[in-house]
Amino acid sequence: MKICRVIGKVDSSVKLSSLQGQKLLVVQDIGPNRDFTGRILLCADRLGAGSGDIVAVTTGSSVRMFFPGEDAACDAAIVGIIDHMSFDTKSHKKS
Amino acid sequence: MKICRVIGKVDSSVKLSSLQGQKLLVVQDIGPNRDFTGRILLCADRLGAGSGDIVAVTTGSSVRMFFPGEDAACDAAIVGIIDHMSFDTKSHKKS
Amino acid sequence: MKICRVIGKVDSSVKLSSLQGQKLLVVQDIGPNRDFTGRILLCADRLGAGSGDIVAVTTGSSVRMFFPGEDAACDAAIVGIIDHMSFDTKSHKKS
Amino acid sequence: MKICRVIGKVDSSVKLSSLQGQKLLVVQDIGPNRDFTGRILLCADRLGAGSGDIVAVTTGSSVRMFFPGEDAACDAAIVGIIDHMSFDTKSHKKS
Amino acid sequence: MKICRVIGKVDSSVKLSSLQGQKLLVVQDIGPNRDFTGRILLCADRLGAGSGDIVAVTTGSSVRMFFPGEDAACDAAIVGIIDHMSFDTKSHKKS
Repeated sequence: MKICRVIGKVDSSVKLSSLQGQKLLVVQDIGPNRDFTGRILLCADRLGAGSGDIVAVTTGSSVRMFFPGEDAACDAAIVGIIDHMSFDTKSHKKS
Repeated sequence: MKICRVIGKVDSSVKLSSLQGQKLLVVQDIGPNRDFTGRILLCADRLGAGSGDIVAVTTGSSVRMFFPGEDAACDAAIVGIIDHMSFDTKSHKKS
Repeated sequence: MKICRVIGKVDSSVKLSSLQGQKLLVVQDIGPNRDFTGRILLCADRLGAGSGDIVAVTTGSSVRMFFPGEDAACDAAIVGIIDHMSFDTKSHKKS
Repeated sequence: MKICRVIGKVDSSVKLSSLQGQKLLVVQDIGPNRDFTGRILLCADRLGAGSGDIVAVTTGSSVRMFFPGEDAACDAAIVGIIDHMSFDTKSHKKS
Repeated sequence: MKICRVIGKVDSSVKLSSLQGQKLLVVQDIGPNRDFTGRILLCADRLGAGSGDIVAVTTGSSVRMFFPGEDAACDAAIVGIIDHMSFDTKSHKKS
């Protein structure tokens, strides 16, 4: 999974029927230096994540497992809200 | 999903039969700094998106769900047109 | 799909049986600045593309749809030859 | 597979049921220069990997094979712990 | 497929059963400038590739086609050994 921070949200009136009523959050991936300056993605949220939360995001066809519907085409979803993340200082290497 | 801007279109006379009659738009992914300077993709559009629109783009095998046909090999499609996108200013970090 | 330019070809005598007789072209992905300086890929071609052509390339498991065989493991294929590509000048942003 | 180093771990109380009780480790991908400064991922571990270990990580839908459950959406897992890695000095090219 | 050079190998005693006895090689992807300074991957080899060989590597779920077993989770495999690769000089553009 990607480790991302929730940074925003979107409104979309024209979308596939399988996305109707689906909460969509903008998240930004963790970068190699452990700040959240990586790629920006749009993902579905059913766990109640909010702005600033650190979340685990699954991408790709695995997401289809919990998005039923003939046009189900969501490829990113929040699968966990991270309470705490700890790094081993020994293995940290500044680039 | 990727958050992209529609930046162009293509004409293609030689293509797989499953792509015949399919509107194809050129889109550019949002970058880490929230401008649209990321990767450029070609994706199918059935929602009526136009040049300059901000769109949600699904990629990968999930797209195959709504492209029937034996040679269906489209791997990117617009799944929503974004009306409004808001960012949490607090969590914005310039790289 | 990726938008790529055909830049070369390969010879391979030792390969999976599902790739035997398959024309393989080297392509280079379009970069964020609209030149073709992105990633280099090897992909199957059944549309008759040639050196210098701009092509639409599908990647991932969607490609398996038209590569039958028990060891079918091709993950990139040309699905269209692009005759013309036009960009909206307004939305072009130099990075 | 990706070659990664285990650099940390996460606690997550709110997550999909298929991830309950699943050990999740933070890993960092090897970079082009053979240090571990690449992308950071969160992945499941059932092999007993620990901090500092070099591991082989599989990503994408292949991971779903060993994560049963209706909402199984894990897209990264450790599939091997690497005891020793050797490089051919001849082919090493500093960028 | 990716075009990679074989640069090393790994020993792994603890791994999924579907990877037992499987030869695993470290490869490095071709970069945009046609040197082999791209991403480093670990992939299965059943074609007898050796150090320094240029190989075609398939990634993702397509690889699962030839890795039977309940925990089959290999996501990268060598599918061809490249004897010769030629580039069209005209289309080469230094970045």
